This record gives sequence, structure tokens and C-alpha cells, in this order.
Amino acid sequence: MINFQTSPANYKHWRLQVDGAVATLSMDVQEDQTLVEGYKLKLNSYDLGVDIELADAVQRLRFEHPEVRAVVITSLKPRIFCAGANIYMLGSSSHAFKVNFCKFTNETRCSIEDDSRHSGRRYIAALNGTASGGGYELAIACDEIYLVDDGNSAVSLPEVPLLGVLPGTGGLTRLVDKRKIRKDRADVFSTLAEGLKGKRAKEWGLIDDSFPTSKFQDSIKARVDQITSDDKPRATGIKLNPLQVTAGPDSREYKFVKLEFERDRRNVTLTIQGPTGDLPTAPSEIEKVGDSYWPLQAYRELDDALLHLRVNEPEIGVVCIRTQGDIEKVLQVDQTLTEHRNHWLVREILLHMARTLRRLDLTAKSLFTVIDGGSCFAGNLLELVVGADRSYMLNDPGTPVELGVSELNAGAFPMSNGLSRLQSRFLAEPAKVDAIFSHDGSFDTEEAEEFGLVTFAPDDLDWEDEIRLAIEERTSLSPDALTGMEASLRFAGPETMDTKIFGRLTAWQNWIFQRPNAVGEHGALTNYGKPTQPQFDFKRT
Amino acid sequence: MINFQTSPANYKHWRLQVDGAVATLSMDVQEDQTLVEGYKLKLNSYDLGVDIELADAVQRLRFEHPEVRAVVITSLKPRIFCAGANIYMLGSSSHAFKVNFCKFTNETRCSIEDDSRHSGRRYIAALNGTASGGGYELAIACDEIYLVDDGNSAVSLPEVPLLGVLPGTGGLTRLVDKRKIRKDRADVFSTLAEGLKGKRAKEWGLIDDSFPTSKFQDSIKARVDQITSDDKPRATGIKLNPLQVTAGPDSREYKFVKLEFERDRRNVTLTIQGPTGDLPTAPSEIEKVGDSYWPLQAYRELDDALLHLRVNEPEIGVVCIRTQGDIEKVLQVDQTLTEHRNHWLVREILLHMARTLRRLDLTAKSLFTVIDGGSCFAGNLLELVVGADRSYMLNDPGTPVELGVSELNAGAFPMSNGLSRLQSRFLAEPAKVDAIFSHDGSFDTEEAEEFGLVTFAPDDLDWEDEIRLAIEERTSLSPDALTGMEASLRFAGPETMDTKIFGRLTAWQNWIFQRPNAVGEHGALTNYGKPTQPQFDFKRT
Repeated sequence: MINFQTSPANYKHWRLQVDGAVATLSMDVQEDQTLVEGYKLKLNSYDLGVDIELADAVQRLRFEHPEVRAVVITSLKPRIFCAGANIYMLGSSSHAFKVNFCKFTNETRCSIEDDSRHSGRRYIAALNGTASGGGYELAIACDEIYLVDDGNSAVSLPEVPLLGVLPGTGGLTRLVDKRKIRKDRADVFSTLAEGLKGKRAKEWGLIDDSFPTSKFQDSIKARVDQITSDDKPRATGIKLNPLQVTAGPDSREYKFVKLEFERDRRNVTLTIQGPTGDLPTAPSEIEKVGDSYWPLQAYRELDDALLHLRVNEPEIGVVCIRTQGDIEKVLQVDQTLTEHRNHWLVREILLHMARTLRRLDLTAKSLFTVIDGGSCFAGNLLELVVGADRSYMLNDPGTPVELGVSELNAGAFPMSNGLSRLQSRFLAEPAKVDAIFSHDGSFDTEEAEEFGLVTFAPDDLDWEDEIRLAIEERTSLSPDALTGMEASLRFAGPETMDTKIFGRLTAWQNWIFQRPNAVGEHGALTNYGKPTQPQFDFKRT
Repeated sequence: MINFQTSPANYKHWRLQVDGAVATLSMDVQEDQTLVEGYKLKLNSYDLGVDIELADAVQRLRFEHPEVRAVVITSLKPRIFCAGANIYMLGSSSHAFKVNFCKFTNETRCSIEDDSRHSGRRYIAALNGTASGGGYELAIACDEIYLVDDGNSAVSLPEVPLLGVLPGTGGLTRLVDKRKIRKDRADVFSTLAEGLKGKRAKEWGLIDDSFPTSKFQDSIKARVDQITSDDKPRATGIKLNPLQVTAGPDSREYKFVKLEFERDRRNVTLTIQGPTGDLPTAPSEIEKVGDSYWPLQAYRELDDALLHLRVNEPEIGVVCIRTQGDIEKVLQVDQTLTEHRNHWLVREILLHMARTLRRLDLTAKSLFTVIDGGSCFAGNLLELVVGADRSYMLNDPGTPVELGVSELNAGAFPMSNGLSRLQSRFLAEPAKVDAIFSHDGSFDTEEAEEFGLVTFAPDDLDWEDEIRLAIEERTSLSPDALTGMEASLRFAGPETMDTKIFGRLTAWQNWIFQRPNAVGEHGALTNYGKPTQPQFDFKRT
């Protein structure tokens, strides 16, 4: 059981220091504090446990420290910034774990970029030693990269030459699409195990600058002072308290989110409880309610539930998404969030909801949304209907079932491809999106079908059977074919750096992670650190 | 040895009939005429041999039948249009062959779309019977799809439910990105083995219309008459004669293209001879010279050489690209092509060159361009420098070495991502592209380096060693990691339907093609047609 919850007091590998507008995130990986046994985390190499702390730190900066304007990421170890993902950990992990590990680390890097793009915090990679592999990938997720010029320290992506796999945390895509390095130089760099140092690394665009050891700390400080020199008023954060979870043999219950497993059918029902009671309407009230405000707590719980399903429940193939609650209350929350979207906390809550929904899009499980009496799929929760692989809505004159739309569906929750889920759904008929927003009030089942919001609307006689059969059929199919199919169908329309990382690069890496040349008895990943040389089948595919 | 050359007189599986402005391409696969032994091509299913004929037919229509405005693709078999790629062929093929087979069939579908987009021929899929799998993928590569409504015929993509693999010829991407089918409907369709028939298929956008059996032929004819009803003057085509090849144990020689193998070093030198002698300058002269005109013949030879390398020389890892000839002559050809680019034959020649260069981009071999004395990398051949993974240019004051640019480098040869190779190269500094076009005359080595046209410029003392070492290093690396790395680095910038097919979809399919759930002893592909059921490891990855 991997637990994705942590907090700074429990960090083993990172130190988070906040000093006014500057946060310093220092990596100091404890080599024996591994997530599982069988390897040592030398040279600031990392496993999933290290990255869970990093993800938590970035998240906390956003909610607990809105006053921070610059984040310096650096190392407490001499001469090494970070050696990347631990190779012995990779070598001893199952294929599925490797894939999920890479996905999570990629999401964490994207969350840094999301913070930079939308919340304006500037991330500085202060490489006080060599950054190789995932270490350099972490650096290129930052806005600026500074490397110490000590005659030794370098940046490198040695995966291809040393391990026979790709830089798996978005590295290749970020090289040519984010830093826009010339592809022939990217080719040379990505095949050079020792990487490049100061001058050439800067000339090629791999780093922004390098400074001699004696001036390194001062130069970083000078840059940080530049960033934080304005006098903008600074907000005070809220506390993110631990989520309370009750886990049973076939269930996992948070306050607003519940997972109910039918393991023999490889199916889980994920139910989200809508907001209840008095809801805050002013930003000051929201700050007071803090992390127990429904859209923050429910989506934090949803996020944790998704990570749990991915890593701890690999055999679950279908997630049936349900909601319970009052549509009006959900729309009331959306109304408040829309009105105050420029308030720092509301903005962070919306961005967190968007990230969680993207985590759902990127989850390799079939997503069926089930809409029946008592459900509250409106506004932000409507994203779970239009974003699912399929949706089923009860058609029963005796049971009122409705869907509702809010202004937030118009772009507050962009998918990785940059479009809203409604835009992605109606690529052929963009006018349908306008029609949905022009529609007066909620959509009953007939209207939902007519407007194209749901896939099927079985009547009450067929309802139970149809859903049961759909789940049975789905879970009988090859899980690999479904993963590839869903990854292809979910991202129609434009591609972005993010979709390239999760689609193109990840799919190639998954392929390579299966190849004997990497993971076979004589593969490069298997052989790393052994006296033997890898043996390749040189047929090009 | 697979031979990619054929001609209508030698077709076994297709019949090409041209009647004025209408061509009919009829599929009539001979089940025993397979490319290799071990399977029968029942129900118009296909193997690579069938697709080589289709690719040839599309190519010939463009050069030999410019008068054709509408192409009807149909079947001569009753009740079946095409059952897709032959499953027993797939089941018995090596991984590398499956991947190369899918790549070629995808390129063929893209060539149909290229013809439609750029040369204005309209492709009509006249489905007089069921089109399943690759059969339907062929249909969605056409502009319009008409399905007979006989109570039986359907369109389907049964790969996921029946075989545990993806529709591998661009199907999923074309569903949501070309036909822009709603993704939940695409999900249902792609998991429904029996597919959908007339009415619902039309409602969901999978076909454009359906007609009852009795009216089918007349309806197709009426549509074709509509397309061909104008009175535009019609050109007369040129003949594409067979390419002459002399193959030795370590060489393969065409007239302008030569392959020299160093098999022990897993390296091949591909040399293109530039144009010589008197070159035509007027369209009428080009029509007279026909298929022996240098840019047509040299690129037809290059295309054939690339296909040969992919399929028949799997162990070759590096292609060293060289040229020999007169830069001025190459630029003279480009000048003529530029001047007359609106003439039908010149347009077809340019589009063919562009397709060949895209075939090169999509070839899973490392591409090193070597520029030294006597080379003629200018204009169209400069694409081989800026498009390569790396380029080496000799820096020797005693040997003049030059590169030249022409107007054709400004967009006549778009990559699959829609950009020119110069644009793709200088994503970070688009002004560099302008500077290159503003430069007066050719570029010597120093200038080429300064303008960013080459990767390295070793001097004459290091020249031989540096290239030898680069090849040695490259061929020592994992060929799988290189394939994934090159596929990621070559396509920076925007993504298109084509790059999604070749990057995202292909990479997922390659992954699935390796998975035990597809190709293992109990995998779905292995088990197809057997009395046993596939057994899956249901862990989601």
C-alpha cells in the first residue's frame, strides 16, 4: 500500500524553508529511507516516495504560502544536485509500477509548470552540482536553470546511452518543445552519458547561466531578489490538514468521496457527495473555512482516491463515477468560485480542481459515469460526465434526473490539450457548446441526450442490466488495448507539450520498458552497475 | 527480400480501371497469393503485398492519370468490402515486421489524403459490403464513405474486443480527429466487435450515407458524376517505368541512388548523385523527359531505398547520407520546379519529393548527413542536412565545401508536423530562418556553422576519426531507445493528425504488440480463431 499523503514535518528527503517571498526546496535524499526494500537512494537519486514529498511541497506552497514568489530548488549534498530516478529501483520494479511512477513524476513536473504559468511563482533550479537524468528533467520543469561552474558539474540525460531507455519524465519533449533546443543538439546531448558543462550547456540552451562556485549562492540570491523586489501585497495561506480516510476490505471512505470495490467484477464505484449545509460566499469566509471548503476538500479526496486506484488497485478496470447531492448547491459553489476567481485562494482551488480532473483524464482505467436519481452532476461535476469514456443517464418518467451547466464548464478546467471538456467533446460541432450554454436551466434526460451530453439513456426497465452488462463487457477486454485506446480517444484535437509528454513520449517509453534490450536478462537496465555488458538485439523496429 | 515495386499489369489483388475522369480501384484479394507462407487472405483481408499494390496504384493515378478527378475504392467480392489486415499474418509475424507493416499501411493512407488535399482528387469509399478493421481504416482515409444497406453490412473496428490490439492504421486518430466523432461514441464503436450498420453509423458520423442494395451502384455513380461534371481541361499523364536496380552482396545501386553496406558496423552509406547534363526548363520538356527527370527519378529511387532499408535491412542502425554533384545544377532544378510549381506534373513531382522526405523522417534508423568535398547539398537536398539527426561538415581550407538554399526550402517539403525542416530546426529562433534566406549565395563551412545549418564541423585532421567514432558510438546504443528518442526529437513543434498517427497511436500500438495479453501464449492475437479463449493479466498499466 503506497500512501500519497505526507506533510513537511514528515518529509524524509526534502527540506522546505520559507523566508518571506522566497521558498527553498532542498533535496537531501536519505539513502536508506526507501519506499520498498532492495535499493539505496544514493547521490540524491529518487523513488516514488521522494517524489510524493516534492508533489506535496509544491501543493503546500500554493495553498499555505501564497506569499512566496520565488522557489529555489537545490541540493544539500555536495557536488550532486540529483542523479535522477534510482536505477536499481527501476530495474527491480514491475512494468506497471515503472509506468505509474513515470506518470506521477510527470504530473508533479507539470504541477510546477502549472504553478508558474497560472499563479506566477517563479521556479529556479539552482544546480549546485551535477543534474543527471530525472535530476535534469526536474530542472527543465523549472523556469530558470543555473549550474555551478566547478569544472565538474554537468547536466545530462544519460538514459539512452547508459540504460537503453528514454528520459522518462518529459525530458526529450521539454528539450525540444519547451527549451526549443535544436534537434541535432538535443540528439547529441541525449546520447552523451557525461552530459555538458557550463559554457557549452549555456550556448546550446540547456541552462540559462553558470556561475563559479565562489559566486554561485550570491548569484542565485541576486536573481531571487530581482524576482521578489516588488511590493505587491501578500496573502496569508490556509492550512492543508491531513485527509481522513477509513479503509475497509472493500471500501475506502473519505468525507465526500467513497470508493466501493466489487473486486470479483474488477469494478469500483466512486461516489462524490455534493456540498451540503451553509456555503461561504465571500473570499474571507472561504479563507476561514479553509481546507474543509467543499470544492477543495472533495477534490483533494478525489485526487488521493485516483492515485490510490492507480497504484494500489491495479486489477480494477472500470471506475463507475456517481454523485449524490443537490444540483443547486453545486451550482451555488460554482457561482461563488466564478465570482471570486481572481481571489488568490479561489484561483488556487480552481486550479487544483483542474489538475485533479486532468489526473482523472490520465488515469488508465475505463471511466463510466452513471447518472440517476439523487445525483448532482452539475457545473464542476458535469466535467465527470463529458470527460468520461461513456456516460449512462436514467430515463425514467417517475424519477427526475438532471444535469446542470455552469460558467466553469466554459474553460476553468482545461484538459491537457488546452480545450475544455465540452470543446473536446464537440470538435465536429462547436455550435453545440454554445447551445448548451444558451439552454435555460438544467437538462432532463431527454434534453441531455438531445444536446449530446450523455452516451446512453436506458429506461428504468433496462437500466440495471445495461450498466451491469457494460461493465462486464468492458472488464472482459484486454486491459492493455483499453489503455492504448482510451489514451488515443480521450485527447482529440490539439496537442500540447503536456499531451506530447503523456501521449507520445510515455507511449514510446512504455514500449521500451517492455523490450528485452532494456529489461531482458542482458538488457541495459538489468545490467546497470554489473560487471557484464548489455547485449542487444540490434534489429531496428 | 520484400520488393516494393509493382505495376498494374502485375497486380494480384487490385484492379485499376480508368474511365475518363473516374478511376475505380477494386479489391479482389487472391487468398493464396500471400507475401509469405502460413496464412490465407480470406475475405479481402490483406498483407503487405496487397498494400504495396494499393500504394502503387495511388502513385500511378497521380502521375499516369492526372485526368482522373474521382477515385472509387470498392470490392469485387460479394458482401465484403475488406476484412482488414490478416490476423494470422499478424499473429505469425515478428514484432519488427508488424511495426513496419503498420507504418507502411499508414503512409499509404496518408498518401491518399495527400492526393486529395493537394491534387484535388476525390476518394470515394463505396462499401458494397462489410468494412472491418483495416478495411474501415481504408475507408476513413477516403473523403466520403457510402455503405450498402443490405441488412447485414457494417463498418467496424473490432481490434480491441477481438484481438486485444488497437486499430493500427490510424483508425482511432481518424475517428476523433478527422471525422471528429464524439469520443464516447468512438469508445462504444471501437469496443463493439460487430460494428454499426447504416442508420446509426450515419447518425454517429462513421459513414456519410447508406443506400439500399438496389440503388447502391446508381447512387455512387450519381455522386461521382457530380464530382466530375465540370469541364476543366485535362492533362495527359507520364509513364512511371520500373526502377532499375543492381544488387550486390554489399550494395544496391540505382541510377542516382546508391547504398553501400558496412554490415559489420551496422552502417550504410546512402549516396545521392545530383543532376547532370542538360536539364529541362519548360513544363513541356519535363513532360517529355518524364520519369527520367532527375527530381522524379532520384526521389523514386530514394523512396524505394528507404523501404528496402526498413524491411530488408533491420540490423542497419545508421544511415550516412552523402551527395555527389554540382550544387548549381541542383539549384537549377529547384529554380525550374519553383517557377512551374502550378503545372500539374511539377506539382506532383514536388509532392512526391515531400512524401519521400517524410518517409525518411519516419524511418527508424539514425540519420547522419556527411558533407564534404564534391557534395551538392543544396535546395531540395539541403533538407537531408537540416532534417537529419546530426550533420557533419568538413572544415578544410584546402577543400571547398558548400551548402546552398533555395526557395523550395521555405515550405515546399513540409514535415508531418506541417512545418518546413528549417522552421522545425529553429523553433527557438525563427529569425534564423529569415537570415538563412537573406544570405547571399552558398554557405561555406564556417558560415554553415554560424547559421546553425550543421551540427559539427571537424577539421580535416579529425574528420575521418570523428565520423567513424560517431557511427561506432551510435551503433553501440540500444536500437529501441534510439527509435523512441528519434521519434520524440524529430517532431518538435505542432502536432497534426499525421504526427498523432505516427507518434501517439503507433507508439501505443507498438507497446501493445509486445504485451503478453496480445502476443503471449494466451494472448488475444495468438488465440484468434482457436477454440481456446485468451487469458488476460488484468492489471491495468
